Formats: sequence, structure tokens, C-alpha cells
Amino acid sequence: MSQLFVRTLREDPADAEMPSHRWLVRAGYIRRVAPGIYSWLPLGLKVFGKISEIIREEMDAIGAQEVLFPALLPREPYEASHRWTDYGDNLFRLVDRKGADMLLGPTHEEMFTLMVKDLCSSYKDLPLYLYQIQHKYRDEARPRAGLLRGREFVMKDSYSFNIDQAGLDQAYQDHRAAYIRIFDRLGFEYVIVNAHSGAMGGSASEEFLAIAASGEDTFVRSPGGFAANVEAIQRPMAAEQDASDVPSPVVHDTPDSPTIETLVDQANALFPRPDRPWQASDTLKNVVFRLTYPDGRTEPLAIGLPGDRDVDLRRLEAAVSPATVEAFTDDDFAANPRLVKGYMGPGVLGQGPLAPGERPAPGTIRFLVDPALARGTRWLTGADELGKHVADMVVGRDFTPDGYLDVAEIREGDESPDGSGPLSLARGIEMGHIFQLGTKYAEALGLKVLDANGKLQTVTMGSYGIGVSRAVAVVAESTCDEKGLCWPRAVAPFDVEIVPAGKGDQIAVTAERLAAELAHRGVAVLLDDRKASPGVKFADAELLGMPTSVVVGRLLADGQVEIRDRKSGSARPVPVDAAVEEVLAEIGR
Amino acid sequence: MSQLFVRTLREDPADAEMPSHRWLVRAGYIRRVAPGIYSWLPLGLKVFGKISEIIREEMDAIGAQEVLFPALLPREPYEASHRWTDYGDNLFRLVDRKGADMLLGPTHEEMFTLMVKDLCSSYKDLPLYLYQIQHKYRDEARPRAGLLRGREFVMKDSYSFNIDQAGLDQAYQDHRAAYIRIFDRLGFEYVIVNAHSGAMGGSASEEFLAIAASGEDTFVRSPGGFAANVEAIQRPMAAEQDASDVPSPVVHDTPDSPTIETLVDQANALFPRPDRPWQASDTLKNVVFRLTYPDGRTEPLAIGLPGDRDVDLRRLEAAVSPATVEAFTDDDFAANPRLVKGYMGPGVLGQGPLAPGERPAPGTIRFLVDPALARGTRWLTGADELGKHVADMVVGRDFTPDGYLDVAEIREGDESPDGSGPLSLARGIEMGHIFQLGTKYAEALGLKVLDANGKLQTVTMGSYGIGVSRAVAVVAESTCDEKGLCWPRAVAPFDVEIVPAGKGDQIAVTAERLAAELAHRGVAVLLDDRKASPGVKFADAELLGMPTSVVVGRLLADGQVEIRDRKSGSARPVPVDAAVEEVLAEIGR
Repeated sequence: MSQLFVRTLREDPADAEMPSHRWLVRAGYIRRVAPGIYSWLPLGLKVFGKISEIIREEMDAIGAQEVLFPALLPREPYEASHRWTDYGDNLFRLVDRKGADMLLGPTHEEMFTLMVKDLCSSYKDLPLYLYQIQHKYRDEARPRAGLLRGREFVMKDSYSFNIDQAGLDQAYQDHRAAYIRIFDRLGFEYVIVNAHSGAMGGSASEEFLAIAASGEDTFVRSPGGFAANVEAIQRPMAAEQDASDVPSPVVHDTPDSPTIETLVDQANALFPRPDRPWQASDTLKNVVFRLTYPDGRTEPLAIGLPGDRDVDLRRLEAAVSPATVEAFTDDDFAANPRLVKGYMGPGVLGQGPLAPGERPAPGTIRFLVDPALARGTRWLTGADELGKHVADMVVGRDFTPDGYLDVAEIREGDESPDGSGPLSLARGIEMGHIFQLGTKYAEALGLKVLDANGKLQTVTMGSYGIGVSRAVAVVAESTCDEKGLCWPRAVAPFDVEIVPAGKGDQIAVTAERLAAELAHRGVAVLLDDRKASPGVKFADAELLGMPTSVVVGRLLADGQVEIRDRKSGSARPVPVDAAVEEVLAEIGR
Repeated sequence: MSQLFVRTLREDPADAEMPSHRWLVRAGYIRRVAPGIYSWLPLGLKVFGKISEIIREEMDAIGAQEVLFPALLPREPYEASHRWTDYGDNLFRLVDRKGADMLLGPTHEEMFTLMVKDLCSSYKDLPLYLYQIQHKYRDEARPRAGLLRGREFVMKDSYSFNIDQAGLDQAYQDHRAAYIRIFDRLGFEYVIVNAHSGAMGGSASEEFLAIAASGEDTFVRSPGGFAANVEAIQRPMAAEQDASDVPSPVVHDTPDSPTIETLVDQANALFPRPDRPWQASDTLKNVVFRLTYPDGRTEPLAIGLPGDRDVDLRRLEAAVSPATVEAFTDDDFAANPRLVKGYMGPGVLGQGPLAPGERPAPGTIRFLVDPALARGTRWLTGADELGKHVADMVVGRDFTPDGYLDVAEIREGDESPDGSGPLSLARGIEMGHIFQLGTKYAEALGLKVLDANGKLQTVTMGSYGIGVSRAVAVVAESTCDEKGLCWPRAVAPFDVEIVPAGKGDQIAVTAERLAAELAHRGVAVLLDDRKASPGVKFADAELLGMPTSVVVGRLLADGQVEIRDRKSGSARPVPVDAAVEEVLAEIGR
């Protein structure tokens, strides 16, 4: 400890939002160099190395082969996949001395595809699983929480290459099983959730989320076993209604009712329903956003949804990616004078049915609605005049949206899309993502091999990622307590810390002897040989978080030392002569 | 082998200048992605990992601690050390989404200095040795020879921090000893040479050069033990001469004598010496270069040296770095009409003695001369008129250069600067560089600690590098032959290749059994289980270069297999039942 390159801090770093970040900095595991960019100190690098090794072992075990691509890459392959543009501001771009465009790799689908194209020509070369553990670069708009969302970070990314869908399914299952083993060994609580909506189908993409209240991702689970990232939920279409006896729409004066709440109040006061009071879910709320595409083009988009729901911005962003989303500003409204803020209705929204290749009329706004708006359902919504709303607007009779988009907030207790019961919500941190890519990159870059009949077949691919540097933070986050870090044995930088506590040669000599004997038995030992008070040493031992410590102190007069367990806080005296064997048993050697 | 991600090529890559590059690509160890940027395939990555591990072990053994810095770095620390500018076009610069200047680290002195400043405050925290194994980036003007001079490459860089020069000397010796162990283990021939000239003194900087005819560096050795990179040689000043009886300079007509050879011929024909013929070493040759500084400023520089020597461009570049050097062009001559090409002399060169702070007169050219031009020596040189030269120009009497600069070509047989005998020249590849930095970075970045008397002291630093990715190429280069790669055991991707050669189940089954048994004994085995002819397998085994192979072929009918040594080419039959033990003995297990 007196020689270890570490300095513990008594103060939290100013930018620490999460406990893991606070403790990793205070315990001297990492240091910030720039926003989202960190250095690894010796203790942090040891944890990082152990996590990398666990990942490597499990990837090797499914027959994956390790390679290593450059981080500095030429533009061309990313141009072919459109990601040079699609990545937008998230891509670090640079120009070399000869004027060539280059980038820092945010992920390597293109490069793997090209390498396999270079080396493989026959179905006999497949299946093939390749992986690398490598630094990646993304110029995040909001780097945060230390290692959790960095601009330079380490990922294990692997890719599978198969001749057919059956092979891809197997590759996907192989990786899924390896990921389960990896995350089990890392020792934090996680959940596997569906990660992709729409046409891809639920089974083709799953995320491994570490369960953490501070996580950026929200996921749902049902009693029947459904689990999904909210970004990936596709709620079913509501049932069609027979609207044949619904009266024609009637415009009502609804003064001062620009919000759903005021509208419901006004409706109940001015034109009450005969059967029951108006409620928010009877209203159709229309919200307009501005989308910005990577090429700079912008487009307004109106979302219609029942008034008791809000648009979930993260779900919307996921749905329209790579476009980015901003709320409509007063300037935007000024530029679209037909939109009456607070009183917008289908009357001014929608581009109408377009023939193939036909472009929407200038000034029209694409209008996508929630799956609750089934054909025949009727709604109270804006009449496109200040202080007026219109009732009995029937979908398919009085207006037809341009399509459906399910981006409403999911709520605790909502019915699961698969009917498996009410959903509960929780938050998590994305630790792994497995994904059936299919032929997207193979087609863009021309990766074909000869099949058994001598015909060229496009290869089908899977993509599988784990955040390695992020895993350091997530393991820390899920195990730390109010005293500091508390590492699981599998990833702790040292197996045991030995704390000589008290003055006198005998204590120091005994501690050194124990350290030497344990080291001789293959145990990684940290000996706190500093001239410091027992209080300082104990506090630092708890802060640094080795799973087991041995206190050589006042009990030594009785021939005993104390074995402490960092996680439970329990301590037990053992005879000094038996200490080595007791420690070996404690740490499972 | 049938599953290994490798494809051997029968053709040399178009850009392969060196055998190591050719074989590493043809044997499927690396693939080029962009100029100077390579991917590691599984075999290459294994070699790279083994070399990294050897380096790590020896660095740990001297008490160095491993850390890891980002590759993507902020501008500010490099601004403080002036390297943001000094690195010129060699630095990859980029701008992040918020407009902040960033760079890809070419080397990390600044970052290490700042980290130690952050964590250390007392002499008790020292000595401290830190290292990292990390990707570095330099935008080389001429990337070449595969891994030898890349734009993305891996270095082990370490830094020592001490309170005084005695500590730095110890740190330097510790690293020197570790480097010797590392390079001995890597198993190629190397030489340790002085690497820095001038004020730093010879012992403060040394290079470890792999001896290779294709190397970019030239070094010299003397029988008495002197060894230096030619860039680092400082030849002694010639002895002063008594010129009191040298007649005044005389201008001679020397028509059509723009070269030293024509000048000597003309001189001998038109104004012969009484004692002996004129020779090239009697003449003073003046050569003008244009220097370009990193800030874009340019400056002409004239070098004067005996006519029998040429300027060594690499020595000149090293001497004027970070400025770059170009030959004077016709345009440059046109812009300096006083310079008469082929007839330049001291008459139009030199800026004269300048008072402190005084700037040279416009149009004057700095004039630095070879150490042969001692005071009192006399020279035949240009008279600054077409077709005229001037004899008996005496240094210090008829002209005074602005200073001395030793950048002449070193020649085989030149006397060693330390008088230890005639020099022999050879070429090498820089594999390691150890360097006493002193306080340059500590001063620029304010790294001070309290000494034993409670006074702030600037820390003194050493810097020590090894090219890790380059080492893969150098080991390959120094061990390969006309058949392919030929790895030393310490770094081979597999210990043994087993080659079933011939048809029949017995051969295949025996080969598989041997492979399984050896693997069980901890040997890394590559089994060539492809359906291919013995000829193809033998050729590939030689190309891939595992140190030992076991051929299971026609001898099996007699109960024997053949153990082959890749390096010597020798083969010996052993009984199949003894094969495992024989292989273990052969590979030293």
C-alpha cells in the first residue's frame, strides 16, 4: 500500500452523479481526463483486466476467435453502410495529413464484414464467430456518470457469420448462453429484455440490463414472463369499433382549455356526456415535434395519442433514429400558422394517402397515432380554432392518420402486450445487447459465399456487444455501500487486504509474514504497510473494497488475528497460526 | 485449422517491402485497413499478446505499476508542453461536437506528469515507475513496412519519477536491465547504442536497435565498445591550426566546376598545389536547406563541410527537429540572388555575431559548419561568382561561421569519437528507447513534491518506450526464412502444429489423439484437420511458422511419427507411443 499508486480522497468529485462514480474516483481506481474520458489507475486496471478475462474465457468457450481492429478507420466502409452520415454528431471524424477522411470507430460491423469477405469464400468457412475487446469512440452529447456513458470506452463486440437463418439462430443462442455465464460470473443482478420493436420480431434482439434505480433505460416485466425495454414495446392495436350510430362531429366552444385537464373540465361543464363524465382517455392529444435527420434535413411530425398519456421521448427517439427529436418551438408554430397551439386537431394534420413516389403537399404535416386509435374509435379533439374542440371524431370516418406509431409512455399496471398480465416498471443499465443483424451489412458490402450447390449466398450476421469499461462501473454500482466499494471475489483487484493495526514490531512482522505466506500460496495480497492510524487504515480498506481483510492488531497478544468480510461486515478471530488456511478457505481456494 | 480464422495467400501483397511484412500478411497474421493501419487476425493477436505479456512481466518485476490512459486527449496539456505545435503534421488532431480541440496521443509524457501531480505530494511517494501498453497515433508522412512504421501502433511507455538525479540514474538502470531481459526473451539480435547527442551526454539516452539490413536507423560500433545511432554521434572538433603563414585568399577562375569533383580537377589543372594534388577534403562544400518550423515559419540554413563528405539528411533532421528539412529549390535560389549555385562561399553566408536579442539582418543566411572546420584551418571554396573559387580561406581569419553542426555522413572506418578505434556501420530498427527526460515536463506542468526538508522540489523524470506491435514485425523479420515465418518458442501462437499427412482413418485418429493428449498437458496445439494434400499442409505449416511440428503420415505404418524443427529443418522419427513425451522434451516442458 505504501508503494501502490493510489490516493484516496475524502471528498466526492464535483461531477459524481452515481455512487459507483463517486467511489471509483475517491478510492483511486479511475481519474477523469476530459468529459467522458477517463484514465485507469492500477486498482481500476486490475478490475478491468479481470472482467475482460472472464469475457474472453466465455467467448472462447463458444468457439469465438479473438481479433483486433484499428480504432482509427477510413471513411469508405462507413460511407457504404450510410453510417458515416447516420451517426451524426456522435461520430468523431478527422482528416489525415493527406486530406483523407477518417473516423474513430464507434462500432465495427463494417470492418468485420469486410474482413470476412477478404478471408472467407465458402459455406465451409462458416459458421464463424469473431470478437474483439477494444476501445470505441462516440462523441456523446451528454457523457455522464464516469465510466457509464463515456466518449472513449471499451467494448467486447462480436459478430457471427452464417449461411442461413437456422445458423444465425444457433449463433444467437450461443451468444445468449455465453452472456448469461458472463453476467452470472460478474455477480450483479440483471434482466434479459426484448430490445427491438416492429418488423424484426421480439426474439431477434435482446438486451441484458443491470437492474439499477439510477439506470438510463426503463424496462417492463409481466407476471407471465414478458420483459422488454420500453423502447421495444409494441402495444397491440385496439379493437375496431362499429361507429355506425356515432353522430357526426360537433364543434364545441371550449374557452381557455389548452390542456387536457382544462378540456375535460370544460367538456363536463359545457357538454356533459349522458353516460358518464368525460375523462382524459376520451380525448385525442396531438403533439408536434421537429425531427432532424443526419443530413441536416428537418421535418415536423405530429403524434396523436389518448389524452391520458404523454409521449415518451426516449421511445420516440428510438423509433425515429437516426433522426433526432426536438419539441416544436414558438418559432416553429409561427412558421406553421395553421397549427393552433392547444387546439390542434386532425383537420390540419396528416398528408393524406400518397401514391407511390408521390411527395406530400408542401406545408402538410405527417400525422402518426397511437394504437389506441383503432378504426371506428371516437375522440374529443382540437378543432384547429382558438377555444374550440370537436367531439365524436371517428377514426376512418372523419379523419385518417398517416400511420401508427407506438411511443406513448408505458405505465405501471398497463396490460402486457402479450396478454401475460399487468406490467411493472423498473430501471436498468444496458450491459449487453445481442442482435440478429441479418444481411444488412453483408448486402451493403457484398459479403457472399458459395453454398453447398456452388451458388453465391449473402451471409447473415449477428452482432453482440458487452460494455467492458461500463461493467466495471456497474459491478461497483450494484455492490458498493455507504462505506465504499465492495468487490465480488471474481473481479476484486486483490483477494485479501492485510491491515496491521497498532504499534509494535510484532504486529508489523506478523502482517508481513502472513502477506508473504498468502502470496506464496497464489493469493493476491495488498498489505497496508503505511505509517497510519488504525482508523485511517480501516476506512481506506472499506473504501478500496477488497472482499476479505485480515486485521493484525490488539488480538495478536492472544495469538489471534481477525478475518473480516467486507460485504457482511462480519469479523471473526482466528489463531494466527491457522490464519493462512482460514483465509484460503474464506476465499474459496 | 479448419476452423481457425486464417487464409494463407500464395501471392505477396503489393506493398510489402520487407520479408516480415510479406510473411505476416501471407500467413494471415495481419491485414491492412488503411495506410499504416492494420487489423490483427487471431494468429497475429496471439503473438502480440505473448510479447505484451513478456513486457508486462519484466516491467512488474522492477516494481513498475500498470495504468492506462485514454488515446483521445484534450489539447491543453500538449499546449503547455508546446507539443500541440511541435508535433506538426504528425499529430492527429480533431474537434469534438462542442468545438473543443482534441488529439490522438502520440506519446503520453504530459498525461503521466499530470497524473503524478494529482496523486503525489511528497518525496515519500517516490520513486515511482508507471507504465502502460497502449495504442498510439502518429500521422506518419511515409507509413511503411506493415507494422514497422504504422499510424496506429501499440507502445509500452513507462515513466519514472524521482526526487533527484541519483534516483533517476537508478530508474534508468532498472529500465535498462528490464529491457535487456525483455529483448533477450524475445530472441532477436539487438544492440544498445547511444541515442542522443550534445548537451544531454551520452549515458542519458540509449536505443535498443534490432540489427536488420532493412532497418531505417544506421548505427556505428567501434572495436573499443563505442556504439551509437549515427543521429547521436558528436564528432570532436578538429585541432586548431596556426595559420600565421597562410597567404591571403586568392580568387581563381574555375570555369564549369559546380561540383566538388569538377572543382578538384580544375584546381589541379589550373593552380596545382606544390606539395600534393588538391583533393576533395581540401574543399569547403556549402549546402543550403530550407527548414520549416511547426508554426509554419521557414528559414534557410547553410551547412559547410569538407567536400569529401555529404550531409546526412537523417542526422540533419534529428539535429533541427521539430523543424523539417527540404533541399533548396530553384525557386529558393531565385529568391536569394546572392547565392550562386555551385559557387557558394562564406562570403554570402552567415549572420555574423549578434548581440543578445539582436535579430539577424534580412536576407542573411545562418551558416553552421562541420567540426573539421577548426579555427586556423584553410579551405578552397566558392567565391560567390559563377566560375570562380577562392583558395586559402582561413577559419577565424577570413570568415567566421555562426556555429558548428555535426551532420556529415559517417563512413565505415571513421575514427570513433571517443578514440576507441575505427567505426563500422550497420543498420537497425529502433525497438526501445530509454531516456532521462529530467525536469522538462515536470517544469512545464508544475510537478513538484515536498522533499525531506519540507521544501518543494521539481520531480525529475525518465521516459522509456518499447514498440510492441513493431516487436511482432521485428521478431518475424529476424527469424523468418525463404519459406515463411519461424517463431521463437516464447512468442509462437501455438507450441506445436500437428500435420496428418495422408489418407486413412488411422492417420486422422492418431493425429487427433496426439493433439488431445498434448492439449491436456498444457501445450497449445494447432491441428491441421483440413482435407488438403500433404504438400499444401507442409507448405502452410512452414508459412505459419510454429517452432515444432509433428507429421503423422506414412511412417505410422511402422508405428512412428516425425517431429520436425521449423528452424533447422531437421526431422526425426519417434515411436508414436512416445510422441507426447518427445514433443514435451522438444519444446522444453
